[in-house]
Amino acid sequence: MSGNTIGVLFSVTTWGESHGPATGAIVDGCPPGIDLAERDIQGALNRRRPGLSDASSSRQEADAVEILSGVFDGRTTGTPISLLIRNKDAREGEYDALEEVFRPGHGDFTYFHKYGVRDHRGGGRASGRETAARVAAGAVAAKIIDRAGMSVTAYTKALGGIVADASLCVADMIDSEKIRSNELCCPDPEAAAGMLEKLREAARNGDSLGGIVEIVVRGCPPGLGEPVFDKLDADLAGALMGIGTVKGVEIGAGFEVAQMTGSQANDPMTPEGFTSNHAGGILAGISTGQDIVIRVACKPIASIAKAQQTVDIHGKPVVLNVKGRHDVSVIPRIVPVCEAMVNIVLADHWLRQKAVRV
Amino acid sequence: MSGNTIGVLFSVTTWGESHGPATGAIVDGCPPGIDLAERDIQGALNRRRPGLSDASSSRQEADAVEILSGVFDGRTTGTPISLLIRNKDAREGEYDALEEVFRPGHGDFTYFHKYGVRDHRGGGRASGRETAARVAAGAVAAKIIDRAGMSVTAYTKALGGIVADASLCVADMIDSEKIRSNELCCPDPEAAAGMLEKLREAARNGDSLGGIVEIVVRGCPPGLGEPVFDKLDADLAGALMGIGTVKGVEIGAGFEVAQMTGSQANDPMTPEGFTSNHAGGILAGISTGQDIVIRVACKPIASIAKAQQTVDIHGKPVVLNVKGRHDVSVIPRIVPVCEAMVNIVLADHWLRQKAVRV
Amino acid sequence: MSGNTIGVLFSVTTWGESHGPATGAIVDGCPPGIDLAERDIQGALNRRRPGLSDASSSRQEADAVEILSGVFDGRTTGTPISLLIRNKDAREGEYDALEEVFRPGHGDFTYFHKYGVRDHRGGGRASGRETAARVAAGAVAAKIIDRAGMSVTAYTKALGGIVADASLCVADMIDSEKIRSNELCCPDPEAAAGMLEKLREAARNGDSLGGIVEIVVRGCPPGLGEPVFDKLDADLAGALMGIGTVKGVEIGAGFEVAQMTGSQANDPMTPEGFTSNHAGGILAGISTGQDIVIRVACKPIASIAKAQQTVDIHGKPVVLNVKGRHDVSVIPRIVPVCEAMVNIVLADHWLRQKAVRV
Amino acid sequence: MSGNTIGVLFSVTTWGESHGPATGAIVDGCPPGIDLAERDIQGALNRRRPGLSDASSSRQEADAVEILSGVFDGRTTGTPISLLIRNKDAREGEYDALEEVFRPGHGDFTYFHKYGVRDHRGGGRASGRETAARVAAGAVAAKIIDRAGMSVTAYTKALGGIVADASLCVADMIDSEKIRSNELCCPDPEAAAGMLEKLREAARNGDSLGGIVEIVVRGCPPGLGEPVFDKLDADLAGALMGIGTVKGVEIGAGFEVAQMTGSQANDPMTPEGFTSNHAGGILAGISTGQDIVIRVACKPIASIAKAQQTVDIHGKPVVLNVKGRHDVSVIPRIVPVCEAMVNIVLADHWLRQKAVRV
Repeated sequence: MSGNTIGVLFSVTTWGESHGPATGAIVDGCPPGIDLAERDIQGALNRRRPGLSDASSSRQEADAVEILSGVFDGRTTGTPISLLIRNKDAREGEYDALEEVFRPGHGDFTYFHKYGVRDHRGGGRASGRETAARVAAGAVAAKIIDRAGMSVTAYTKALGGIVADASLCVADMIDSEKIRSNELCCPDPEAAAGMLEKLREAARNGDSLGGIVEIVVRGCPPGLGEPVFDKLDADLAGALMGIGTVKGVEIGAGFEVAQMTGSQANDPMTPEGFTSNHAGGILAGISTGQDIVIRVACKPIASIAKAQQTVDIHGKPVVLNVKGRHDVSVIPRIVPVCEAMVNIVLADHWLRQKAVRV
Repeated sequence: MSGNTIGVLFSVTTWGESHGPATGAIVDGCPPGIDLAERDIQGALNRRRPGLSDASSSRQEADAVEILSGVFDGRTTGTPISLLIRNKDAREGEYDALEEVFRPGHGDFTYFHKYGVRDHRGGGRASGRETAARVAAGAVAAKIIDRAGMSVTAYTKALGGIVADASLCVADMIDSEKIRSNELCCPDPEAAAGMLEKLREAARNGDSLGGIVEIVVRGCPPGLGEPVFDKLDADLAGALMGIGTVKGVEIGAGFEVAQMTGSQANDPMTPEGFTSNHAGGILAGISTGQDIVIRVACKPIASIAKAQQTVDIHGKPVVLNVKGRHDVSVIPRIVPVCEAMVNIVLADHWLRQKAVRV
Repeated sequence: MSGNTIGVLFSVTTWGESHGPATGAIVDGCPPGIDLAERDIQGALNRRRPGLSDASSSRQEADAVEILSGVFDGRTTGTPISLLIRNKDAREGEYDALEEVFRPGHGDFTYFHKYGVRDHRGGGRASGRETAARVAAGAVAAKIIDRAGMSVTAYTKALGGIVADASLCVADMIDSEKIRSNELCCPDPEAAAGMLEKLREAARNGDSLGGIVEIVVRGCPPGLGEPVFDKLDADLAGALMGIGTVKGVEIGAGFEVAQMTGSQANDPMTPEGFTSNHAGGILAGISTGQDIVIRVACKPIASIAKAQQTVDIHGKPVVLNVKGRHDVSVIPRIVPVCEAMVNIVLADHWLRQKAVRV
Repeated sequence: MSGNTIGVLFSVTTWGESHGPATGAIVDGCPPGIDLAERDIQGALNRRRPGLSDASSSRQEADAVEILSGVFDGRTTGTPISLLIRNKDAREGEYDALEEVFRPGHGDFTYFHKYGVRDHRGGGRASGRETAARVAAGAVAAKIIDRAGMSVTAYTKALGGIVADASLCVADMIDSEKIRSNELCCPDPEAAAGMLEKLREAARNGDSLGGIVEIVVRGCPPGLGEPVFDKLDADLAGALMGIGTVKGVEIGAGFEVAQMTGSQANDPMTPEGFTSNHAGGILAGISTGQDIVIRVACKPIASIAKAQQTVDIHGKPVVLNVKGRHDVSVIPRIVPVCEAMVNIVLADHWLRQKAVRV
């Protein structure tokens, strides 16, 4: 288990390189008897597909998923679910100019030092392409989450410095369908318009933009999460920081707690429930039953047209102008990836809790 | 492995409740032949001990560690190292008034819903006391890290809104001994003075303060970290978010990347090395060989003297005034805990990499 | 990880049902830089293929393997290797008569009770077909084992009561090529002739036969195996007992030790090495450097033409005559499966030992 | 997790050397609300204690267990249970004569090659002493097993070539209390008398004896066990082969299946249930609901008084006469160890199944 598997009872193993023949995932531990068809997964994959917004590259990938096992007569059997996505539009020659160059902000340099081999084809395993497999697996997790009465919604909180109005990001108001219908998956249409303007400007400059995604879980029962290392927030943080683009994760009030006092930060309890949610739905690593609120910071896409200083594998200096079809921001394509990771972690912890209260 | 174990090759299992007879850790996977004595561990434990600063409670714990296995003639044998710390100053009666009350900001409520049983004695397993076991285990990890040529130093970056001068927090200038000699483990003595003032003020108000700890790893070779879920940053984020007090984790530029462009965020490479470190020493989840820089947000101590609104286990409203000996801030006692978690993660990944390049 | 993954550092996850579209395996943790092509795997798969001997069914499966990831320019990259085998000759209708019948000696009854769902198509996940994925993964493990200077050879020790001459089964005399050229993978051609006679007789009776496979590992360095639960013999026993047909596993003298004295069983050591090998190459769970010798007992194929008493899923009695294309014995097709499992366990422990002596 | 942990949801980590200050176990994943006191564990430990029969050494160990965590007010809390057993009668000087000698049949040679360090004090971690921790942990597992309606009973099936009458070893007739009251834990008193005679003879000769232990599980519900690698029989075989003395494991008919036909081996089903149990209660790796029947082969104690040929760590030949207090056979002390391992595996699989049918 060299790092390509996540989860204890509900586990996901992904495989595949960006320019190999295919990518995919094995979902193990899915309970039997759950309705599952390719269309359930395809919906999530389509939301991750490039070319949907001005932020996205023009690479065309059908990303059609094939279920190869674990489902019989339209229902899960309890055995591993193998999901296969063929890489349709992988142009092998496209990256030849980069054969010996370490692209700044990419994993080229670190993979080379880790493995001592070089797969220069568009990032290989480190490519964002790998997240297609996560999204497919996450769609299976979402079916379990749904059965458990939970739902996970992610949306664009900030992009290029424009921040969505907090009053529109309150969990009670979040409408998944509405968010998904927005080109940037932003619950604040006005802010979204400003973000799009920023994206166009960055594209004109041959540059890219970072942003923030917020994820809200509704309907989570109290009691999910294990002490002391497999806390629910620890597993969520690990799962989200494990997305290539993410450089920060915070739960509830997050970094703001650093400036709060205890009397401000503590969420009072009344017979009617908590009166605030600075904890973000998790106390001592275990869900409180409130909405779980998470934010992740996404760095700008590393592949930019602007000239950059770098070196090749021989250590020689190179000025790099990345060509090819690249997104201007991981937002909004990263939004369903964040949802997938949260769905996977919750499905695992929900199943784990089944074995606690026996 | 219900959540009390961390690590694949170098693994740590902790056990113990705050008011039980003892707490401890099993360290498994420590290579043979490493010099190890109780004094190596005691030093780290002493730095975590209460009563060292104005921020700390007056609970007196010798926290004397006993090595029960895995060491022979002063050197590790390769077998599990059992570390035992007796709880000396656990006053059983002290928490009787809280027997049926859920303290705000504590795990009382969530543990009760998870397990259906109630251990009201000072937080039980959710108590900060559990971190003593982590610190002891981390001291073993530090011996491996040291052999690998790495060192981990954490320090107080912010407390109660006062922020240490960034120019004093540059990795090159960090001096572990100097930091540890500061009452608040802060590299900026002037800021530390302001922080102490804030702490005294909060104490007078019966309140508590949050803050930020920064952790720097020097000497990390390139190539540590596994794709795609066990990335080095994913494992660090999970390990640090798994500390009870932490609500946010960021690597390198962290949440600032959300406002950067790609040309700003990418770290250029030259034949002499990287010319910036927004990545915080980790690219695509694998170490670059630069300093690893991490920040964690710590919430204010939940136990405060100020009156708080809460409920008891029967759902009845209660106004709570927490008595007893409580810290005003987890800082500086959390500093060695952060170091311990990073040491543990690095030791594990360093050993894992030994099995990659064979 | 609901049971479909084996291994800590070198791990294998299999998926697929006997009558679904495909079966396959993910091999994770294979070191980078190892030559690997589909032909390396195909050779092992061909040895497992049905229709090679009088013991085998006439089901025709090309069992052509496709490498979908983890290999670039003919060498492993260190990332997960996805292996895909399409099910070519799965006749969906073939099992309709069995839709509601629990076949004696099969997993039908237990899977139904475990999962509450019924996949009657030829055993589903419990089918011997799943072992194709193991053999494919084992062929990757064999490349690592080979690099480590080890080799694994399995052969037919007994079938239908006929036992191969022990003097021909001594490790020094074992010739993999010769064994593989024998129709029953038996090192004793005379015994093999008797076994074939027994097989034909059983076939005429509509019955099936059990047997014993012996596995020999040569070139294993001393020091492989972990105390105390992941002992090398514990992991080998678990891996081999996890083959559906196996009902017993023994190492070295095995069950004979029950009748020995200590002075008989202990293997004396001299400056030239051990003078006997009752331990079968493993002492206290760790390899001694001698040949590792293992035997497994294989039960007769459960699907027989003879009338059998059974029940259906409603509990009603049924007299069953299994039709279809079934083997008369799992031998010799199980021989490469045994080799695969041993290769997988050894590859894992060899890599694990790399992280012990650092 | 370098091999000292077993189990996925119910996990046990043991630690400790034979001549260190203590040995112990961490039991993680025990459900909350189970009555547990030290006396529950002490009973099992007492059955493993030396000096109870003519087969045992005269080393006196109180083996008093201390519960250090995970229990509050007499019931488990769901958090890790730390069990501590001080080594009372470890005479440090006793093994000085063996400081440089590899004892035949012991782990001295293999541990030295694995770790490159030498802990000569009575076997260190490889000593049978480690099984005290397993027995303590197994007693916790037994409480879960009991709640699940199962019971595990092991007994001496054969010793020194004397075999207990099969008609007295039928599961229906097995009486745990009666067996435990027999000096050799044998259900056949007449055979036991013969075995004792053999033991005395071996002791006179300065030699030791091997034997067979049979383990029967009653009340196991159908459906326990995971495909395909974590089969119930695979995990049982691994757990039992991981006992230092065991060289063979078989389930149900075991090695006899090699000589059976399918029509003999298959267990017919009728509306009243199975009419035989050659499968030993496990089909396709999953429990059938019948009694589970397992046999393990135990090698003779390696430490014998008889002169033996061996070498020292410098490779020089030595004639060894082991002195000290040694058992003549691991039977009957190994009997509760076998029960412990089976209890641990069953508790784990019972909890795992809770997360399958949700």
